[in-house]
Amino acid sequence: MSDESKAKKNPQGKRVGLIMVHTGNGKGKTTAAMGTAFRAAGVGFRIKMIQFIKGSWDYGELHSAKKLEHFEIIPMGEGFTWETKNRERDTAVAARAWDACREAIEKNEHDLLIFDEINNVIAYGYLDIKPVIEALKKKPADMHIILTGRDAHPDLIDIADLVTEMREIKHPFHRGIYAQRGIEY
Amino acid sequence: MSDESKAKKNPQGKRVGLIMVHTGNGKGKTTAAMGTAFRAAGVGFRIKMIQFIKGSWDYGELHSAKKLEHFEIIPMGEGFTWETKNRERDTAVAARAWDACREAIEKNEHDLLIFDEINNVIAYGYLDIKPVIEALKKKPADMHIILTGRDAHPDLIDIADLVTEMREIKHPFHRGIYAQRGIEY
Repeated sequence: MSDESKAKKNPQGKRVGLIMVHTGNGKGKTTAAMGTAFRAAGVGFRIKMIQFIKGSWDYGELHSAKKLEHFEIIPMGEGFTWETKNRERDTAVAARAWDACREAIEKNEHDLLIFDEINNVIAYGYLDIKPVIEALKKKPADMHIILTGRDAHPDLIDIADLVTEMREIKHPFHRGIYAQRGIEY
Repeated sequence: MSDESKAKKNPQGKRVGLIMVHTGNGKGKTTAAMGTAFRAAGVGFRIKMIQFIKGSWDYGELHSAKKLEHFEIIPMGEGFTWETKNRERDTAVAARAWDACREAIEKNEHDLLIFDEINNVIAYGYLDIKPVIEALKKKPADMHIILTGRDAHPDLIDIADLVTEMREIKHPFHRGIYAQRGIEY
C-alpha cells in the first residue's frame, strides 16, 4: 500500500544504478531529490548534486547538507540569467555545469549524482540533449543519477528507469501568500 | 524559471503556516516531505514526522535524521497490516497515530509536522476525515503541516494551501528491477 515500498526488495541482488527523472510543473522535484540524498547519505552513499540554476535551495539545505557525510552540493548556475540578451553567456554557464556532470559520471567517485534543473536548461535550448543521453548511456552500471526540472526531454524519459511527474494542483501563491522561509526557500 | 522559487519571498512578512498535501500514485510523496524537513531543519525549525504506516523510510533516513537537530520521527504504524481480517486492529493503530497528530497540533511545540501516509489510511476508511479537517482548521496560524499518501480526500484538498500530485510515468519495477537500497529503501 505504500508507494515508496512498491518494488520488491532484493538485498542479495546486484545494485542496479537507476536513471531517475523528476519533472512536471509542480513543487517537489528538487525537494524529492534532496530527500533521496538524505536517505542515501544514511546508508553511506557518496552523493554529489550539481545545480544548473541558482535556485531557492541554498542556505537552509546547505546548512543541513554539511551535517551529512559525503554529500556535496556544487552550485554551477551563479551566472545564469534566463535573459534573451544573455543567451550566449547562459549557454556558456550551462556548458560548464554539464562539464561538471560529465566529469562526475566519468570519474565514478559517487553512488548518486543529482543534476538539478538540467531539464529546464535543455528544454529552453541552452544545452543539447544528445551528449547528455550519450553520457547517461555510458554511466557506470551501479551509479544512480537523478535529473530534475520541468519539461524533461522525451529522449531522456525514454532511457530513464523511473520518471515521476510532479503536478501542481494548488499553490498558495495563487491566494496571495508569499513564499515561506524554511519551506519554500 | 525555477518552480521551487516561484512564489515571491517576503522576509518581513508574518509567517503563514501552510497545509501541504503530497498525493498521487507516484514516488516522491514521503521523499519530498523528507526533503522539506531537511531544508526546514537547516533554518532551525522543530520538526516532527508521525508515520501512519510502517514504511520503507526507516534505517537510512533515521540515521540521517539523527544528525539533524530538532527532527523527530515517530513510527506509529508498526501494527498496521492492511489485512481485512485485522480491520479492527488496524483501525485502532490508525486512531493511536491520529491521537499523536492531534496532540502535536494542540501542543504547538513544532514548526513543521508531517503526517506520513495519513491519506491512504483515510482513503481506505481506517480513519475518519472529519476530525482531521477540524483539527487542521484549528491549527496554530504559523504551523506548517504536510500530509502525504495517495488518494487524498477532497475535503483535505479543499482546505489545503499547496497540493502536489506525484504521478508515476515510469517505474523500474515494471522492467523487473528490484527496489534499490539507499534509493527506494
